[in-house]
Amino acid sequence: MTPAPPDTSIPTLGPCRFPSPLHHFGTVEAPFKTETDRILYHSHLLEDGRDVSTPSYEEAGPREKIYFDPPKTTVGIVTCGGLCPGLNDIIRGIVMRCHHQYGVARTYGFRYGYEGLVQRYGHTPLLLRPNSVEQAHHFGGTLLGSSRGQQDIGEMVDTLEDMKVDILFVIGGDGTLRGAAEIVKEIERRGLKKAVVGIPKTIDNDIRFLDKSFGFETAFDAAVQAVKCAYVEATGAVNGVGLVKLMGRDSGFIACYAALAGSNVDFVLIPEVKFELEGDGGLLESLRLRLLKRRNAVIVVAEGAGQHLMETGDATDASGNKKYGDIGQFLKDRINGYFKSRKTEVNLKYIDPSYIVRSVPANAQDNVYCSRLAQSAVHAAMGGKTGMLVGRWHGSFVHLPLELVIHGRRKVDPTQELWHSVLECTGQPAVMK
Amino acid sequence: MTPAPPDTSIPTLGPCRFPSPLHHFGTVEAPFKTETDRILYHSHLLEDGRDVSTPSYEEAGPREKIYFDPPKTTVGIVTCGGLCPGLNDIIRGIVMRCHHQYGVARTYGFRYGYEGLVQRYGHTPLLLRPNSVEQAHHFGGTLLGSSRGQQDIGEMVDTLEDMKVDILFVIGGDGTLRGAAEIVKEIERRGLKKAVVGIPKTIDNDIRFLDKSFGFETAFDAAVQAVKCAYVEATGAVNGVGLVKLMGRDSGFIACYAALAGSNVDFVLIPEVKFELEGDGGLLESLRLRLLKRRNAVIVVAEGAGQHLMETGDATDASGNKKYGDIGQFLKDRINGYFKSRKTEVNLKYIDPSYIVRSVPANAQDNVYCSRLAQSAVHAAMGGKTGMLVGRWHGSFVHLPLELVIHGRRKVDPTQELWHSVLECTGQPAVMK
Amino acid sequence: MTPAPPDTSIPTLGPCRFPSPLHHFGTVEAPFKTETDRILYHSHLLEDGRDVSTPSYEEAGPREKIYFDPPKTTVGIVTCGGLCPGLNDIIRGIVMRCHHQYGVARTYGFRYGYEGLVQRYGHTPLLLRPNSVEQAHHFGGTLLGSSRGQQDIGEMVDTLEDMKVDILFVIGGDGTLRGAAEIVKEIERRGLKKAVVGIPKTIDNDIRFLDKSFGFETAFDAAVQAVKCAYVEATGAVNGVGLVKLMGRDSGFIACYAALAGSNVDFVLIPEVKFELEGDGGLLESLRLRLLKRRNAVIVVAEGAGQHLMETGDATDASGNKKYGDIGQFLKDRINGYFKSRKTEVNLKYIDPSYIVRSVPANAQDNVYCSRLAQSAVHAAMGGKTGMLVGRWHGSFVHLPLELVIHGRRKVDPTQELWHSVLECTGQPAVMK
Amino acid sequence: MTPAPPDTSIPTLGPCRFPSPLHHFGTVEAPFKTETDRILYHSHLLEDGRDVSTPSYEEAGPREKIYFDPPKTTVGIVTCGGLCPGLNDIIRGIVMRCHHQYGVARTYGFRYGYEGLVQRYGHTPLLLRPNSVEQAHHFGGTLLGSSRGQQDIGEMVDTLEDMKVDILFVIGGDGTLRGAAEIVKEIERRGLKKAVVGIPKTIDNDIRFLDKSFGFETAFDAAVQAVKCAYVEATGAVNGVGLVKLMGRDSGFIACYAALAGSNVDFVLIPEVKFELEGDGGLLESLRLRLLKRRNAVIVVAEGAGQHLMETGDATDASGNKKYGDIGQFLKDRINGYFKSRKTEVNLKYIDPSYIVRSVPANAQDNVYCSRLAQSAVHAAMGGKTGMLVGRWHGSFVHLPLELVIHGRRKVDPTQELWHSVLECTGQPAVMK
Repeated sequence: MTPAPPDTSIPTLGPCRFPSPLHHFGTVEAPFKTETDRILYHSHLLEDGRDVSTPSYEEAGPREKIYFDPPKTTVGIVTCGGLCPGLNDIIRGIVMRCHHQYGVARTYGFRYGYEGLVQRYGHTPLLLRPNSVEQAHHFGGTLLGSSRGQQDIGEMVDTLEDMKVDILFVIGGDGTLRGAAEIVKEIERRGLKKAVVGIPKTIDNDIRFLDKSFGFETAFDAAVQAVKCAYVEATGAVNGVGLVKLMGRDSGFIACYAALAGSNVDFVLIPEVKFELEGDGGLLESLRLRLLKRRNAVIVVAEGAGQHLMETGDATDASGNKKYGDIGQFLKDRINGYFKSRKTEVNLKYIDPSYIVRSVPANAQDNVYCSRLAQSAVHAAMGGKTGMLVGRWHGSFVHLPLELVIHGRRKVDPTQELWHSVLECTGQPAVMK
Repeated sequence: MTPAPPDTSIPTLGPCRFPSPLHHFGTVEAPFKTETDRILYHSHLLEDGRDVSTPSYEEAGPREKIYFDPPKTTVGIVTCGGLCPGLNDIIRGIVMRCHHQYGVARTYGFRYGYEGLVQRYGHTPLLLRPNSVEQAHHFGGTLLGSSRGQQDIGEMVDTLEDMKVDILFVIGGDGTLRGAAEIVKEIERRGLKKAVVGIPKTIDNDIRFLDKSFGFETAFDAAVQAVKCAYVEATGAVNGVGLVKLMGRDSGFIACYAALAGSNVDFVLIPEVKFELEGDGGLLESLRLRLLKRRNAVIVVAEGAGQHLMETGDATDASGNKKYGDIGQFLKDRINGYFKSRKTEVNLKYIDPSYIVRSVPANAQDNVYCSRLAQSAVHAAMGGKTGMLVGRWHGSFVHLPLELVIHGRRKVDPTQELWHSVLECTGQPAVMK
Repeated sequence: MTPAPPDTSIPTLGPCRFPSPLHHFGTVEAPFKTETDRILYHSHLLEDGRDVSTPSYEEAGPREKIYFDPPKTTVGIVTCGGLCPGLNDIIRGIVMRCHHQYGVARTYGFRYGYEGLVQRYGHTPLLLRPNSVEQAHHFGGTLLGSSRGQQDIGEMVDTLEDMKVDILFVIGGDGTLRGAAEIVKEIERRGLKKAVVGIPKTIDNDIRFLDKSFGFETAFDAAVQAVKCAYVEATGAVNGVGLVKLMGRDSGFIACYAALAGSNVDFVLIPEVKFELEGDGGLLESLRLRLLKRRNAVIVVAEGAGQHLMETGDATDASGNKKYGDIGQFLKDRINGYFKSRKTEVNLKYIDPSYIVRSVPANAQDNVYCSRLAQSAVHAAMGGKTGMLVGRWHGSFVHLPLELVIHGRRKVDPTQELWHSVLECTGQPAVMK
Repeated sequence: MTPAPPDTSIPTLGPCRFPSPLHHFGTVEAPFKTETDRILYHSHLLEDGRDVSTPSYEEAGPREKIYFDPPKTTVGIVTCGGLCPGLNDIIRGIVMRCHHQYGVARTYGFRYGYEGLVQRYGHTPLLLRPNSVEQAHHFGGTLLGSSRGQQDIGEMVDTLEDMKVDILFVIGGDGTLRGAAEIVKEIERRGLKKAVVGIPKTIDNDIRFLDKSFGFETAFDAAVQAVKCAYVEATGAVNGVGLVKLMGRDSGFIACYAALAGSNVDFVLIPEVKFELEGDGGLLESLRLRLLKRRNAVIVVAEGAGQHLMETGDATDASGNKKYGDIGQFLKDRINGYFKSRKTEVNLKYIDPSYIVRSVPANAQDNVYCSRLAQSAVHAAMGGKTGMLVGRWHGSFVHLPLELVIHGRRKVDPTQELWHSVLECTGQPAVMK
């Protein structure tokens, strides 16, 4: 337990008399703080009079007594959905811990997502041993392969029964975890004793109730490289415009962070903040003014931004996600059209680095983070926990109920600091309408 | 305010009957958890019956009223001590925010640490404008230069008076911040109204009461590259031994993280865990056994480890830090000697990447972190706060009293998860005596 | 002068009796060699009885007497056409050499290509000094900006006269150099004494009569990173196909080298080798067979490949280059259609990294190469050479007449080793019809 | 055959009247050229009246008839001496070509250099198959391991006989190739029909009669990163001096190229150019003057430079190379001493990145180069060539007699362009005595 700090009061020079100049982003008010906005020092629950009913998470870590008898335990791993840096690190971490620490009987890697749990697809599972995963963290992607979409729950539990899998580790996003919750229910319904532990994956860093999602830092670092290239392109031509589409279906964290990383971004467009193209305050006119002032501009757009501007149908992909219109291509066309109609030369270069961003190997920070997530997952499952997720909260690894992350996503709050910092950094209008 | 999660209880399969196999690292017991180890969901102080006397930090952010009148405000920045990735990002962030957001009159960069505040050294301060720092974050080091050691407090405050500096941002480690505290006292003694805000710097990530120190992630990523090279060297020769000395005078965080990043490390030696060379359980014999088993080995040693093994005097450097013996060179000689005496060939390659690790440019994650630290510092100072530090706690940026970080450092706790994970990863003996 | 080697004969074990198994790439015969295929040891012209009429290039380097009087000499630099790694290195190299070595009066950087030489565009030239270019090589792109297309020759020479520019360095591709040749003629027509020296730029490495073009190695290194990502994507899904479009309008060097760099490419499609989609031996069926065998495939296509397959009009871009159809998008659609019609799932990921590849900073090798090209150009121009290019031939820097590189491009010869190596590496059918 | 260029004459503006300002590097005269210094266009031997006695190399490539019957052929590979980027690429290339193109029976990898060919060491050879080397090029070092020094020639040929090895590929430096030449002689003496083909390795790029050695570009790129760090360190302190020791026992190519790559180097010290420390024109005083002018300096020293300044004995390492004194440590001590005696503060940071430079994976350019070297070696050996090396000359892959590269090394010629460029770049005195 971290000991309490001696004193946390901050000296001041005296009363503040001047109004802050930071009111200025259109209708967006600065997230002003007062001295009563306070961050708790303690993150562990204390015996200090605070009620245990205070919401808190179960801390992750090894249990002194475990539920499964290791030499008789069979483990399975499956990776689902889109690629994300760190998948191989997590697979590696699970295999290493299961074998070297607990000495489980065997670990299977199911191929190509939930398809691998359905026998009629014919994807033979891999028997994973420490030496088959030893170098895996040097490579991007997933050595198991992945796929999108649900499969029949019954067939999947049949496979777990047939292969005598006691513990299933499921790595994937919302849809995948919803599937995992159904697998848990079916296991209960059949009266089986199998643990299902999830590791939530979202490259967008949009999981609520968690510090950060694995792979985000690596992905964001790769995204910044693409934004730098956009800046080079923008400055290399008369009225150069670098347009970069980054991940972010429902939340704009990667786009915001790319701007904050100092790569000279002029406009950040995210799903959480609606914008219009036309009109005096619209994006197109704002861009024109920016070009007049600086001769070049960089625009970073999250893939889920500006969807209301396009005619998009109701189609969904195999994961059940709504198919989004291609905002990057759309903006490219509209910007080119706008300036053409004004007979102004622009040189727009459109960069869509998504597959490059998501398929790089994890960086050192994510190597460690994934390794510890895997470790926490193994400890939990061996302890008989099920229907849960591992994650990090306030710097500590914790257990969360599966349902927690399925209900809603974390978003950029346009009234809070992160977005405010972006507005400061870019100098873009707070409202573009 | 983040809303509360609905429910945080975790299902289990039933009672745990098996003792965990994780008791095994010699005398080091596994940090077993029970369900009463809990992490608080809330990090902001709530009106929920909890006493305000619960330790908490003041949250960082802009204040609605500010103390200094921007057009009449002069700002100074000084960087002290050893290089660390992110210094230029922080300088850049302060200049950008002071000019673009607040519109201060001018910002000076004092050259070469505290020397730059002492006029007889003749280091003319730089007048920093946005375009002079625009690209600074692409380069390592500090554009202001740095130096170690204290200077006369009176002379430094004289300079602040002569140059009419209202706000001084001080970026540095323990010694530097102790100096900053004295500057604050002298300012008070003279009845001046000048704010001094510190940004704590330590590449070792050993600041207590803070989530992490800036530059740590970049440095640790660079360190991992060196460890990979050590592994390549070790596997490239008969009985190859790769020995890498990393930063860490008093704490072994970088060394531990380098091992966890999966770079095939066999031994991690840190200041917090004493080890002996000789004897059956000593490092030398443990290394011999490891070579018999694997034919090669990688050793990562923090610079402050094993100091009791060497004859070191009481000399100190200009910063007042005790001069440490060179544990890397010492181990190299002792290992070579040991195997020579046993007529066993070893091929030891010693790598000391310290200057390479600390002088790289900040990575994207540190770009953002430093930018937000700078922003928090500027908001605090403009609000008339003084004698304080900015930092991050549980994911939020906060204000801390200067004294807080000066008293003691954060260390790797050998009884907790981090060290336990290292023991698991390396398979090294928990006790080497 | 390099001394002659003592003896160059190679021992053999005896007569060769077995036919080589390397006849096998369809109708493409292996480029078999005999002992009479010989490479000359000498690259400098010798006084050894060989006739001076043997084609040879003038060697680059400083001249003992120079044409221009440095303190009275004004220099101009212009960069034209698409971005290419190394542009800033060349600008920097010219400025550094002109100032530090020769001490010229001043160096102007004309903005945005030939537009910058036409006064009515209003692009004020930059006055370049050593400290304005000192760090330029750390950044991609061109600090001068660029543009495509010709401008009025008379107006450009007017500007040279008005600004008293004695030497103009022109960095650009075919069209640009054709423009430079016309500038030379107009200068002659006016009886002026101005030197024009070109530095040929083509990221495709398709310049005849030269070893390599600057930036190619950097670009190709960046391209390989994208191909690695395509491989990760391909292996991450059932019947995964990674499709990467790389530069190469008329020649496939980058595509071929990317395959040879060992990144597991299955098909390389280049402009020099025609292929068909349909039919038993066509690309689509060949791809299907490859997927059956390996479950994934990587296709690298040069942008100029397969143009006969698409309906493309006669439109040209501002540089006068024929507008090509988008072979990447075309292949994506056709491959997806083919497998859809066969009810086979494929997961195709299309990556177009062009802007990322061309806008990265030069690597160390190109840093040096560009620096030496710039040096050679400065020496030549100061010596009064004009209407010429600098380049490297057989490892030596040389002077070439401007016309030389304008007439025709270097291409991948499908009967020679490079393409043969690609066929070996990929195992793709030599003929796809 | 490349066709002849139409015309190679270069226009000039007129006679040169001004003496060049480039005479200035002390006693080192600029390598002035005249129009009679010419580079031959043709590199292949032509039927144009030139005598076949003109020195020329045999061109590499597949032969129509081969000497060995592939299904009955056994291949061996051995890597010797210090690590160098690209070793794994060459091993991979040989295995891939032997198996996929020729279909040889088997390929052995001998472990730990020549030790692996001597049975009493007990290093079991690896049986190499395509899938065991497929990802090898992503890693630095050599998967076979290496060792220094000779072994008994008879024992090694015994092993070749016992294991029925028909072809031995030897990758190594001078000493290794001298050993290979003796193996060839012993094979002949015993009347065996075994081919020995060498691939010369030297990270210093100091092989005569060859364009470049593999791994050099990768190593030099890595070296530049270290030099950049030295520059950051030098600028970060009062009178900062960054001192970097790079490879280069007998030749200073890496040191020269690192300076030319634009990393702000002030002094380059190489074995080919003697320098003194003391005296008015010595290094120490030159450094003092440079610090007065710029406040910081970067020194790059090749490991073989300045050996005459140190007391070094006659000891040799296992490869038979003379043990050199540590010029880096020596200069560090002498520079610190010099300034201490003058009571001038200097902050010298010494970086020795050798193991980091040599153990990185090959970059894309070296991936391709090594792949093609391997291919050439396989073609040569299958064609019954022996006692030879493969290499590149004027851009073409060629065969060279083994003896060629053993006799003498390529060095930096202080009278020619490369060194002259370094003097220009650094501005260092041409003579330091």
